Amino acid sequence: MPFTYNRTIRFSDTDAAGVVYFANTLSICHEAYEESLKVSGINLKDFFTNPAVGFPIVHANVDFFRPLFSGDQVIVNLTPQKIGAERFEINYEIFLTDVLVAKAVTRHVCIDPGSRNKQELPAEIVEWLESFRKEMEGMERRKAREVI
Amino acid sequence: MPFTYNRTIRFSDTDAAGVVYFANTLSICHEAYEESLKVSGINLKDFFTNPAVGFPIVHANVDFFRPLFSGDQVIVNLTPQKIGAERFEINYEIFLTDVLVAKAVTRHVCIDPGSRNKQELPAEIVEWLESFRKEMEGMERRKAREVI
Amino acid sequence: MPFTYNRTIRFSDTDAAGVVYFANTLSICHEAYEESLKVSGINLKDFFTNPAVGFPIVHANVDFFRPLFSGDQVIVNLTPQKIGAERFEINYEIFLTDVLVAKAVTRHVCIDPGSRNKQELPAEIVEWLESFRKEMEGMERRKAREVI
Amino acid sequence: MPFTYNRTIRFSDTDAAGVVYFANTLSICHEAYEESLKVSGINLKDFFTNPAVGFPIVHANVDFFRPLFSGDQVIVNLTPQKIGAERFEINYEIFLTDVLVAKAVTRHVCIDPGSRNKQELPAEIVEWLESFRKEMEGMERRKAREVI
Repeated sequence: MPFTYNRTIRFSDTDAAGVVYFANTLSICHEAYEESLKVSGINLKDFFTNPAVGFPIVHANVDFFRPLFSGDQVIVNLTPQKIGAERFEINYEIFLTDVLVAKAVTRHVCIDPGSRNKQELPAEIVEWLESFRKEMEGMERRKAREVI
Repeated sequence: MPFTYNRTIRFSDTDAAGVVYFANTLSICHEAYEESLKVSGINLKDFFTNPAVGFPIVHANVDFFRPLFSGDQVIVNLTPQKIGAERFEINYEIFLTDVLVAKAVTRHVCIDPGSRNKQELPAEIVEWLESFRKEMEGMERRKAREVI
Repeated sequence: MPFTYNRTIRFSDTDAAGVVYFANTLSICHEAYEESLKVSGINLKDFFTNPAVGFPIVHANVDFFRPLFSGDQVIVNLTPQKIGAERFEINYEIFLTDVLVAKAVTRHVCIDPGSRNKQELPAEIVEWLESFRKEMEGMERRKAREVI
Repeated sequence: MPFTYNRTIRFSDTDAAGVVYFANTLSICHEAYEESLKVSGINLKDFFTNPAVGFPIVHANVDFFRPLFSGDQVIVNLTPQKIGAERFEINYEIFLTDVLVAKAVTRHVCIDPGSRNKQELPAEIVEWLESFRKEMEGMERRKAREVI
């Protein structure tokens, strides 16, 4: 099951077209990522301020299906996945009362912030990723059983 | 009693100094204002998207006492006050676990968004302002009684 | 030849990791788009404020190769392309002293801002797109001649 | 004479009211500050990324006289002033074709970024401040002479 993040669209998210400025949609996704880390027990201040390891985004993409307005209450569903010893990817789906309004992906690589050399994902991130993987597998097994 | 807004400091709020970028503190205050309007029953989408009346900010000021970091859980206390037929002012105090980290003020004037001419505050805003005034008066009366 | 936009990285572009916040890279690309429209003679105020036609972004993607820091002087090379009667796409390449630091794409669809129905691209945008196409063709013809 | 910074209002500066989002006006002022430092010979990357001394803003205020729209070409006039061994203040005036549209102030204190203890302003900042002070005095002297 994905992690679920509730977010109210703020006036500062919008632009002169009256809707959320496109790039801010990715910021809202990043907030969901931060919240998911926090809920898994990670200290966000340590994680984002002078950390021993960093997770810069090397790729992002986003598709927009509907505009979002000030005051809209959206739900961001987030599913991360390990894609290598030093990499993970996060899928986001943004819903407004059951309608999919946007989809996004961010791809992260683990580095030493000083040298910017790649590093293996640390234990706390692997655990965070594992918690999603196990749930996914459990869901698939349940689905398979239902089919049988 | 002020309106209370809970907010987690996000990575996108910060700058290369590792703390919240100064101007973003005012955005966080504005979010508290939006939330207070919403709780009072105002439809934020109508209020902020092509509205019949607008409330542009004509003055803002902010004092910073402590830095804020990614992941910090702050509370914004908001108290609005009518300061004329066409104007109101909002006071904000941002707390991090009981420590005052910043104070801010925004002053708003009511206009016709087309002509940008000043207008009297509409009923829904006057009610919102009144709800705070009455509570304040109630508090002062209770305090006065306690003194007696 | 692409349109070239010069930009200094600002403190407000950065985050607590000390580098440009990923989503702000797309904002910098959008600035290049705005500047290109302006140089082609389009009035930006009319284009972005209560316009008769809008060009919302339906897809964006970005790849990051190097971090950018406060004060960095980057060049954004922009090449738009018509991809349908109602659509165009823009490719961006961000360079820091000849090193490619990021690549991005935005895909835009032409709509009536009121109904949000799709519309054919208006003349001024077609002209803007054509000016790039002609230059491209000219370049390819010159290259072909050189080969001969 | 103040330092002059030219800036085009960008779509990302605006909000759903069609004009510059109030807090972004302060970001535009901060850009002018960055540009002024750069022109005086200060390396912005060193200044803003892991610096030996920091200059957090302890107070900011801003007055808005006219709205600003996408595409508007504004001029920011900046005048800094030393206000103590560890402090300086910057005054900003934003003009749109000779009309004053906003005024702002930021007050900065010099600190050690590690301990966040106050420190004396370093030589390069004192020089930057002095260059404005001398020009000011020169202007006043010239004015005084004209009166005589």
